[in-house]
Amino acid sequence: MARPDGRRPDQLRPVTLTRGWSTHPEGSVLVEFGGTRVLCTASVTEGVPRWRKGSGLGWVTAEYAMLPRATNTRSDRESVRGKIGGRTHEISRLIGRSLRACVDLKALGENSIVLDCDVLQADGGTRTASITGAYVALYDAVSWLAGRKSLAGKPERVMHRSVAAVSVGIVAGEPLLDLCYVEDVAAEVDMNVVCTGEGDFVEVQGTGEDGVFSRAQLDALLDVASLGCLELAEAQRKALAS
Amino acid sequence: MARPDGRRPDQLRPVTLTRGWSTHPEGSVLVEFGGTRVLCTASVTEGVPRWRKGSGLGWVTAEYAMLPRATNTRSDRESVRGKIGGRTHEISRLIGRSLRACVDLKALGENSIVLDCDVLQADGGTRTASITGAYVALYDAVSWLAGRKSLAGKPERVMHRSVAAVSVGIVAGEPLLDLCYVEDVAAEVDMNVVCTGEGDFVEVQGTGEDGVFSRAQLDALLDVASLGCLELAEAQRKALAS
Amino acid sequence: MARPDGRRPDQLRPVTLTRGWSTHPEGSVLVEFGGTRVLCTASVTEGVPRWRKGSGLGWVTAEYAMLPRATNTRSDRESVRGKIGGRTHEISRLIGRSLRACVDLKALGENSIVLDCDVLQADGGTRTASITGAYVALYDAVSWLAGRKSLAGKPERVMHRSVAAVSVGIVAGEPLLDLCYVEDVAAEVDMNVVCTGEGDFVEVQGTGEDGVFSRAQLDALLDVASLGCLELAEAQRKALAS
Amino acid sequence: MARPDGRRPDQLRPVTLTRGWSTHPEGSVLVEFGGTRVLCTASVTEGVPRWRKGSGLGWVTAEYAMLPRATNTRSDRESVRGKIGGRTHEISRLIGRSLRACVDLKALGENSIVLDCDVLQADGGTRTASITGAYVALYDAVSWLAGRKSLAGKPERVMHRSVAAVSVGIVAGEPLLDLCYVEDVAAEVDMNVVCTGEGDFVEVQGTGEDGVFSRAQLDALLDVASLGCLELAEAQRKALAS
Amino acid sequence: MARPDGRRPDQLRPVTLTRGWSTHPEGSVLVEFGGTRVLCTASVTEGVPRWRKGSGLGWVTAEYAMLPRATNTRSDRESVRGKIGGRTHEISRLIGRSLRACVDLKALGENSIVLDCDVLQADGGTRTASITGAYVALYDAVSWLAGRKSLAGKPERVMHRSVAAVSVGIVAGEPLLDLCYVEDVAAEVDMNVVCTGEGDFVEVQGTGEDGVFSRAQLDALLDVASLGCLELAEAQRKALAS
Amino acid sequence: MARPDGRRPDQLRPVTLTRGWSTHPEGSVLVEFGGTRVLCTASVTEGVPRWRKGSGLGWVTAEYAMLPRATNTRSDRESVRGKIGGRTHEISRLIGRSLRACVDLKALGENSIVLDCDVLQADGGTRTASITGAYVALYDAVSWLAGRKSLAGKPERVMHRSVAAVSVGIVAGEPLLDLCYVEDVAAEVDMNVVCTGEGDFVEVQGTGEDGVFSRAQLDALLDVASLGCLELAEAQRKALAS
Repeated sequence: MARPDGRRPDQLRPVTLTRGWSTHPEGSVLVEFGGTRVLCTASVTEGVPRWRKGSGLGWVTAEYAMLPRATNTRSDRESVRGKIGGRTHEISRLIGRSLRACVDLKALGENSIVLDCDVLQADGGTRTASITGAYVALYDAVSWLAGRKSLAGKPERVMHRSVAAVSVGIVAGEPLLDLCYVEDVAAEVDMNVVCTGEGDFVEVQGTGEDGVFSRAQLDALLDVASLGCLELAEAQRKALAS
Repeated sequence: MARPDGRRPDQLRPVTLTRGWSTHPEGSVLVEFGGTRVLCTASVTEGVPRWRKGSGLGWVTAEYAMLPRATNTRSDRESVRGKIGGRTHEISRLIGRSLRACVDLKALGENSIVLDCDVLQADGGTRTASITGAYVALYDAVSWLAGRKSLAGKPERVMHRSVAAVSVGIVAGEPLLDLCYVEDVAAEVDMNVVCTGEGDFVEVQGTGEDGVFSRAQLDALLDVASLGCLELAEAQRKALAS
Repeated sequence: MARPDGRRPDQLRPVTLTRGWSTHPEGSVLVEFGGTRVLCTASVTEGVPRWRKGSGLGWVTAEYAMLPRATNTRSDRESVRGKIGGRTHEISRLIGRSLRACVDLKALGENSIVLDCDVLQADGGTRTASITGAYVALYDAVSWLAGRKSLAGKPERVMHRSVAAVSVGIVAGEPLLDLCYVEDVAAEVDMNVVCTGEGDFVEVQGTGEDGVFSRAQLDALLDVASLGCLELAEAQRKALAS
Repeated sequence: MARPDGRRPDQLRPVTLTRGWSTHPEGSVLVEFGGTRVLCTASVTEGVPRWRKGSGLGWVTAEYAMLPRATNTRSDRESVRGKIGGRTHEISRLIGRSLRACVDLKALGENSIVLDCDVLQADGGTRTASITGAYVALYDAVSWLAGRKSLAGKPERVMHRSVAAVSVGIVAGEPLLDLCYVEDVAAEVDMNVVCTGEGDFVEVQGTGEDGVFSRAQLDALLDVASLGCLELAEAQRKALAS
Repeated sequence: MARPDGRRPDQLRPVTLTRGWSTHPEGSVLVEFGGTRVLCTASVTEGVPRWRKGSGLGWVTAEYAMLPRATNTRSDRESVRGKIGGRTHEISRLIGRSLRACVDLKALGENSIVLDCDVLQADGGTRTASITGAYVALYDAVSWLAGRKSLAGKPERVMHRSVAAVSVGIVAGEPLLDLCYVEDVAAEVDMNVVCTGEGDFVEVQGTGEDGVFSRAQLDALLDVASLGCLELAEAQRKALAS
Repeated sequence: MARPDGRRPDQLRPVTLTRGWSTHPEGSVLVEFGGTRVLCTASVTEGVPRWRKGSGLGWVTAEYAMLPRATNTRSDRESVRGKIGGRTHEISRLIGRSLRACVDLKALGENSIVLDCDVLQADGGTRTASITGAYVALYDAVSWLAGRKSLAGKPERVMHRSVAAVSVGIVAGEPLLDLCYVEDVAAEVDMNVVCTGEGDFVEVQGTGEDGVFSRAQLDALLDVASLGCLELAEAQRKALAS
């Protein structure tokens, strides 16, 4: 069964990571997974929230949001509705946890970094693109702190791992990598996998949207996701080397 | 390494499912996983939300909350703060998805069921206890609808699967089933697994709290979780038979 | 005219006060007035809110809430609606005032106690059951503080009075004690009375729901309420003695 | 012991009821109890809220608020804080209940009247002044509806009773009528009493602010309040006759 | 074409500025532009908001609101809706900017003044009446501070300019001064102009409600507005002299 | 006195209008005024809000927002704070009014268009760039409706005027066109001017930030703004022709 854009089942969409897309933030990356386009910025504040003062530890957190017309039909703004929806909360928390997994907060010292992931255009996989792009923005922000001699440890210690994420799913019985929107809607099982550059897992979230899944299906999805994440880690390395 | 309550690594805490704990709801269950105590109620409304009218499909949703002093230190009420926190949103959505996985919404017909899971006392595993208890409350609510001849299909078709959930984690390198609070805090990896009575997966959420996990560790956690869920399914069957 | 449960006009429903119902709070009581069931917890914090610091006085406050399906039809959660309703505010304030009337805040010293009264099941008289149960939870919390030598005065000075509360009403022209839900709905006049163990009044709130009431009717209601409160004070003494 | 303005214990402050103070509302009254000044307006809408349609019954409700600098120190606006406080809720509900007690909602027919009581200047007794003034504004609004032949019954049937309210309290052991702010702060017991023009009670709310009160004290307070309300009813009659 | 109240095109409505309308605030003015009636109060706090501490500068801010029935049909309260509307925000900001233009914040010293402008009755021009009245209330508040020797500079230095404001508009092709409500609704162009007593501009806001306007029309409007503001400045001087 | 980027006083920054920047909306334009970068999207819904049904008129509205790190220091999200700030409200209203001035709502027929202007990067003039870009997005959305034969009138009738906007200000005594951020901060007077392609005014908003301005200064600012708007209108024409 053919994918809408002719990809092989285990093929990523074209991935681009444009560093320095905006001028103000300490790190900023426009990440694209095919038609999905997310602006990831890393904002540094010296000091930490009050409850963390004196701990010697830094703080990394994330906020995810979509522009109202990032999707096919317009959504009301959460600022206008006066509250954050459940999906937004859930994804913001996932991004924050994933990024904290690659940072040594002691080596960061009492600095705070907020990662803002704003979806400018959505075509499936916005949370995984966000994590993948935010890692690069975070790296640049840590380098910026290093340049100001504001880190408690060495920068390579602060960023002691890389993280990347990809969605996988079972569509018409077949495991597919990096679902676009029409595949996501059709998926029987949907999984988001966050991995380190070494191939370990940071987070695994699998959901039987309309059905359930067997251990064998789960294994097949993890296989394809692991490979996809390694490929994304390579793209991150290249972006950071350029 | 000994567990605080002397359990074997793959042993559940004592589980009780008290049906009919409160008199008003169409289904109500007080579920206890050791010191964790959740009141699960199922509330039936004939009809469905406006956006679903005329579809012939029913609707099942869930809301999770904690009493302010369910935990060791008091938390502010979300009603007082004026908004639902990210964690509450995330868990409510998980419970709703899990329960919808066991219901045939066409056979339910245009009826709505809200599952309220209110944690009266927390000692780890509140979301998995909620899912396990809510399944029994939902079953009773569907039977109530059957008694009123209000279902579109047969009750056994409506509830075509059972679901139960359990937490697992790696503590001091060892996979443990059904973490209590002190184990949860100490866990390197934390996973919530929702399974059907047949042993298929409905949802898998694994998080490396402070670290990362290998495929082998993931496999070990899934093994112990699957067995735990089967045991909980058996407890559900017994409760419904009594 | 017979009462639904066959009680005499001046008879309370069966009252139970279960101390230590939950393990985390410094005081916790499950209070039942017939089918009305409220979990009252007392949470101690050392120190007082900022505006009270250095005054030498303690602080006691209360929050009342109902589980969504405590009643016959489900109510939306106030946390989901994003605001506290007028009825909730009114009752929380009444409970707080009533409990402060039995505490010597100077003898309490700069400690804060929050009383949470969560209605698990409602059948009329939830606010009066809350006050009656919260007194016992508060007593236990003050004893806990005494055990830690954290009080400014002697415990019997801190709790220098007991308080209990009961609802009364005129139904079909007759004054009735401790209305259950169906009586409450039918009442022409509805009154909540809070008394000390010595029989003095702390708070009197009478409302002509559908009508008005004469001084003679008011007097008859106060008579029956005073006796009811004395009986509840006795139940509190027994619970605290056990 | 002398009152700050030299009144006798059972003497009201000067009361003025200025009808037609503003031009837009169907009824508008500026009520003054000494230095307390409340603008009461009655706004008519033909039709009733959705949940009441087809019942044949009208609807009367009230909203109370204070301008930020009605008091000696400025309070934040509730609109700015984004929520209504408990005190505001409590008083709005009291005013609404009190005014509904004097209206025959069947004779009103399916019309809605909102009573807005905005305190322009506060010197004690704002809720009782609000009720007293709102009655006159409501009367004018009902007359306006009568003039448009929009009532289901006769106007004298719609407004089948008058209501007025006054505060009383025990200060330095003595029962005082119509407390001004400094007396209110000093009161050991504080009571708000709403009466009909015939002297029946509509609502009685007594609170031992810092202490408790005996039946004898309660009786003394009710005596003085009843007389005060009759005097206010007379002032209402005069205002409506002019 | 005749104006509803027979005014000449360049004629203001009767303007009254009643100082000391309420007793609590440090400055309070009831300003009337014909049927528009706004209560302006100035509330002084010694000290400034935290972000301004130690700057030596004072702070002046404003809040505008309408009573629900100030207008012909009742509006919901912003406190009940839980948020401030866009129009309210816009006008509050305009008043604040305009009043800050006449104050030397250094001479004011670290004192804060909040100007509350509450519209009791609206008939067009509520924002311009608010600015005109608030200036007088602010002047009185600064005099009050001078009386307490709490200013950093001389009072005439603090209030180094006066400000007044008026609305102008083009109705049926003709420039009109100080629009009442029916004129405002009919206006093709609507402009609010804030001027100093010397005739300089502080703020100019012109809007083509239903159309556009030429430079010539803009010039004509500015001419008539400038004269109107000078007349209002004279009324302010008289009010302050009395 | 030199401008930071070497421009002449009456020179615009480089302006780009990229149509079709995102794929989902009916109109989408990335507008850049130098370093200011705003994504303007136009979202069409067939039908109008309820209060407008049956009027035969369409509806055009706008929402403005900034990404949290569009500016030099990160701002909290309005969705997280739970409310829209005054500045956001004010600018959204300005954009909506300005765009409605160029649309014949009768010719549009009962269709709704929402213009979302999201600032991705800010360097002064974000509101004027938004208006200028939103006009082009709106034009494309109207063409899209024309292509679906959904307009009540001819498209050239619907868009019977063009609008563009620019900021001007007086810095160090000199009138400057199209202020960048550092100029905006230094401006004594700040004015936003919205003009049609024919050079008429739609909206004029001038503010003496720290001072006041004379009629002569106002005239000089209007002169330079008018020329700037004509240049922007030409850029819009070119973008729409390509």
